[in-house]
Amino acid sequence: MPNEPDKWFFDRINRNLMQLHAIEEIVYSGTTKFQKIEIIRTGAFGKCLVLDSKIQSSDFDEFVYHESLVHPTLLSHPNPERVFIAGGGEGASLREILAHKTIKRAVMIDIDEGVIKVCKEYLPEYSKGAFDDRRTELRHEDARAYLEKSKESFDAIIMDLTEPIEEGPAYLLYTREFYRTVNERLTPNGLMAVQAGCASMVELLNFSAVYQTLKSVFPVVLPYQADIPSFGGPWGFCLASKGVTPPSPEEIDKRTAARGLALRHYDGTTHQYMFSISKPLRQHLERQTRIITDKEPLYIYGQGR
Amino acid sequence: MPNEPDKWFFDRINRNLMQLHAIEEIVYSGTTKFQKIEIIRTGAFGKCLVLDSKIQSSDFDEFVYHESLVHPTLLSHPNPERVFIAGGGEGASLREILAHKTIKRAVMIDIDEGVIKVCKEYLPEYSKGAFDDRRTELRHEDARAYLEKSKESFDAIIMDLTEPIEEGPAYLLYTREFYRTVNERLTPNGLMAVQAGCASMVELLNFSAVYQTLKSVFPVVLPYQADIPSFGGPWGFCLASKGVTPPSPEEIDKRTAARGLALRHYDGTTHQYMFSISKPLRQHLERQTRIITDKEPLYIYGQGR
Amino acid sequence: MPNEPDKWFFDRINRNLMQLHAIEEIVYSGTTKFQKIEIIRTGAFGKCLVLDSKIQSSDFDEFVYHESLVHPTLLSHPNPERVFIAGGGEGASLREILAHKTIKRAVMIDIDEGVIKVCKEYLPEYSKGAFDDRRTELRHEDARAYLEKSKESFDAIIMDLTEPIEEGPAYLLYTREFYRTVNERLTPNGLMAVQAGCASMVELLNFSAVYQTLKSVFPVVLPYQADIPSFGGPWGFCLASKGVTPPSPEEIDKRTAARGLALRHYDGTTHQYMFSISKPLRQHLERQTRIITDKEPLYIYGQGR
Amino acid sequence: MPNEPDKWFFDRINRNLMQLHAIEEIVYSGTTKFQKIEIIRTGAFGKCLVLDSKIQSSDFDEFVYHESLVHPTLLSHPNPERVFIAGGGEGASLREILAHKTIKRAVMIDIDEGVIKVCKEYLPEYSKGAFDDRRTELRHEDARAYLEKSKESFDAIIMDLTEPIEEGPAYLLYTREFYRTVNERLTPNGLMAVQAGCASMVELLNFSAVYQTLKSVFPVVLPYQADIPSFGGPWGFCLASKGVTPPSPEEIDKRTAARGLALRHYDGTTHQYMFSISKPLRQHLERQTRIITDKEPLYIYGQGR
Repeated sequence: MPNEPDKWFFDRINRNLMQLHAIEEIVYSGTTKFQKIEIIRTGAFGKCLVLDSKIQSSDFDEFVYHESLVHPTLLSHPNPERVFIAGGGEGASLREILAHKTIKRAVMIDIDEGVIKVCKEYLPEYSKGAFDDRRTELRHEDARAYLEKSKESFDAIIMDLTEPIEEGPAYLLYTREFYRTVNERLTPNGLMAVQAGCASMVELLNFSAVYQTLKSVFPVVLPYQADIPSFGGPWGFCLASKGVTPPSPEEIDKRTAARGLALRHYDGTTHQYMFSISKPLRQHLERQTRIITDKEPLYIYGQGR
Repeated sequence: MPNEPDKWFFDRINRNLMQLHAIEEIVYSGTTKFQKIEIIRTGAFGKCLVLDSKIQSSDFDEFVYHESLVHPTLLSHPNPERVFIAGGGEGASLREILAHKTIKRAVMIDIDEGVIKVCKEYLPEYSKGAFDDRRTELRHEDARAYLEKSKESFDAIIMDLTEPIEEGPAYLLYTREFYRTVNERLTPNGLMAVQAGCASMVELLNFSAVYQTLKSVFPVVLPYQADIPSFGGPWGFCLASKGVTPPSPEEIDKRTAARGLALRHYDGTTHQYMFSISKPLRQHLERQTRIITDKEPLYIYGQGR
Repeated sequence: MPNEPDKWFFDRINRNLMQLHAIEEIVYSGTTKFQKIEIIRTGAFGKCLVLDSKIQSSDFDEFVYHESLVHPTLLSHPNPERVFIAGGGEGASLREILAHKTIKRAVMIDIDEGVIKVCKEYLPEYSKGAFDDRRTELRHEDARAYLEKSKESFDAIIMDLTEPIEEGPAYLLYTREFYRTVNERLTPNGLMAVQAGCASMVELLNFSAVYQTLKSVFPVVLPYQADIPSFGGPWGFCLASKGVTPPSPEEIDKRTAARGLALRHYDGTTHQYMFSISKPLRQHLERQTRIITDKEPLYIYGQGR
Repeated sequence: MPNEPDKWFFDRINRNLMQLHAIEEIVYSGTTKFQKIEIIRTGAFGKCLVLDSKIQSSDFDEFVYHESLVHPTLLSHPNPERVFIAGGGEGASLREILAHKTIKRAVMIDIDEGVIKVCKEYLPEYSKGAFDDRRTELRHEDARAYLEKSKESFDAIIMDLTEPIEEGPAYLLYTREFYRTVNERLTPNGLMAVQAGCASMVELLNFSAVYQTLKSVFPVVLPYQADIPSFGGPWGFCLASKGVTPPSPEEIDKRTAARGLALRHYDGTTHQYMFSISKPLRQHLERQTRIITDKEPLYIYGQGR
């Protein structure tokens, strides 16, 4: 018994479900202007970035999350050059984007400079120098306000945000009004991707509402998912565009090679796994009627949980 | 705070990870000749059958588990008539098997009569009368000994067993020796399916060892997975045969209709989701060298955990 | 690991502290008109009566609680004949009162008839027939309203109430206004006792505020405590009177014998343990300035916790 | 919910009972030659010294523990000059001892130099310079071997040890053989004190066995207890001597003043609280038949738990 773990991180999935992670070390703990931030080394997943008590990334499976968020969108575009990222403080989405040889410019806006400082110091292997890449423009301001006043067009826009919590920094980046702005800032062949929360059948409000909200704006919206064990199960994403759809699995593998990518998670078969949504999820996603708006935003605490 | 759940079931995934379920009611609690048995009503998943502290089935997602275990195998066979089930005390695998109009005989052997009694009384909606179907032959003895001395051949053999724990009732039903017996009892077009434990990247020993052990016996072995939230994430299965492989997604949907099945989880698209194994899992499964034998059985507690 | 307890009851002491009890059985679970009620059999303390998620009594140490609440007061009175009890649904305070041969009448008012029904059925060894004693008058109404309109005088008044929680059934029985009514209903030599919540140094708001509130009404107020392990540590009580004080330890033992009592916890030495308040508690109790009133009642959730 | 504590330290009281402490910070975490050592800042008790997963001291109540361990013994001696301490790595027992103006020499032996280093750096307010006092002789070796070969006599010997766990550093300092050595090293008016583990009715094996083992060696053995909330409830101690007993409460207060002590917990009334053992504890202590010997040592994990 003396050797059993004695310190546990409680990750609440919902009111009736928690995942407990054995804590080996609290590498960093602090508060930024916007949120509580911690780097916790867990026994199961290594170092985890934790914002406002929710795990954002872990050593063990951050490659699954970041490859899933970035590559379906970038490999669906024949020649992506300009990319916009909202959030993504670890720098790992940026790292995956810059790995595409075609990329000429990546504008990343994360409102919370504090998160990036901590990640640079404690998780440098996540960004692998991406912040210092000459193609990167990093800004700390409100991503929505920036896009609203920008005249630039992007081949891809990646939403790597924390979940929408009341008074949190991200909840107004999940609304129909914002998605319309995103649509305006995309080139005709452009695509957007968004992480959309838990994709376990037991907790689908966020995923399904984001999906329906995107459908109210974009002609093409494809939901997909991948298992992220440190998040407690499958995680949802959506890809949206004005018309472009992903290529075949074979073409995915070809483009991956042509772009010089060395991927650990995403390939043609993984794409089929991620984009083949099982019947009960499909039904749940289609039956959702909730549209997220500025007036009626969605908070995962309280309403969803 | 007074309204927060105050009673929790601790499901240990491994040494460093637990899933906690809010308990609403302990519907039944007892001990059979072979194991501890409980029916716990949880806040997230409704009634759960719990054997030796592991959730076996829940109201919420038992259809995912039982459809995933049974239908890929039965729909891969053009005309299954005779089926053998080892384990499956809830009667839900039997229910799914008997739903195929082609079935003429189903032999189910669950060593633990106590489990079946409790399930009949407290979870009758799981078996839906399957135990009383005239095609069913139910026996309480050792499934391995039965198959070893039997001369009968089966179109499908379904392994719906508890996980292999030391001195538990099932650990000798996961070995190469036993799989050879299964192979001998299959018709030339016959297939077998086995539930193979956790399929989360964080805990793959059982899944990968079962996969490799089957590969040492059968010419065709296909690993697949489906998310079962009440089990804490994706769950692994293997389909094995002397040569038969699953039909195309379109053919799956056709056969489902032709057999008169009304499925909630499994269809052609779900098949693609389940049988498309993501890259890191594929690598882990292929790299496993452990073969489970009578002399060196696998226990998920201790060794795996 | 399979033999480790897997079901736990979470008892929140305060925001930063919880006691977890292994659950062996949920003997009863329901809701009365006033509160959630459960009988939980725990591994450490046997059956526990739990109201609104707080343990009220356990097989293991209910004798400590009920003897501590009743006997210091009754043995401080030379000849108690008439006693009033507010709360005390288990019937165990009543049991201890009726054990005094001098008692001629015991009026017990517990607003929650549902609690008494459940206790009679599932915890009959707590009341040991006390509800059927011809000296008992049991009523289900508001104890405060009853005392306000009553003209009867009592030798002892025992407050065996649940803790004051917002909208709970008891919070208006902890106020100065109510204690004044109690004072009016006591004979000149009468005494009252009240359970006053946690007496651990880490959580003294309730105990100290009840103490000071009583001091604003009664000339004599003596705080005392006893360790009740199932409650998570030492528990506080107050004895109050118009002038009477407890006798010497020797006299306590004499009166105990003379009254025909067979006590397991309380005697002269235990009295010294309970009424000798350690220095930091004494200081905390004396320094408290909070007086509980109808207008500013105390809730242990929120304010105290 | 986002503001609820999300990191918890699990303190196992026994198989069926745990106390959970909200973690604010892991100030230090490491391993010495002998044990795992951590300084954890908890929400309820401030910084806690944790050895092998058991809390040894906390900011909140270390004064209760250390005053309880040291002063009953030192104030029972009319003029203590020479004191021996086994264990006590925080330096707080040493601090309390040196506060007595009469003390001329304090020999402290803690086998684990690593603990003292960490405490000096992270908990300097516990030792308050006591390690640098010219009266202190600090040694890192086996306390038992030292006393066995020493010829020196002491007025008081203080056992401030971790609990006896298998292969832990302290289990051979709780045996009858060792207590005989202690007896030989005491002056005729000398006294010893030992912390004796949990004094909650629910877990009395350690306390009662230490008590009975001391009684097999010393003519006078007095058990006493004090509530230490960070330890999860009341904690047990024993005072033993060749004949000396504690003075009256009034004399305790007089000697405290005469020695120049400014105590926060211990005084005459606190003494009565601590040394008045409640009836069920008394009975349990007296009925224990277990004597701890070198051949049959006591381990609190396994046997006791």
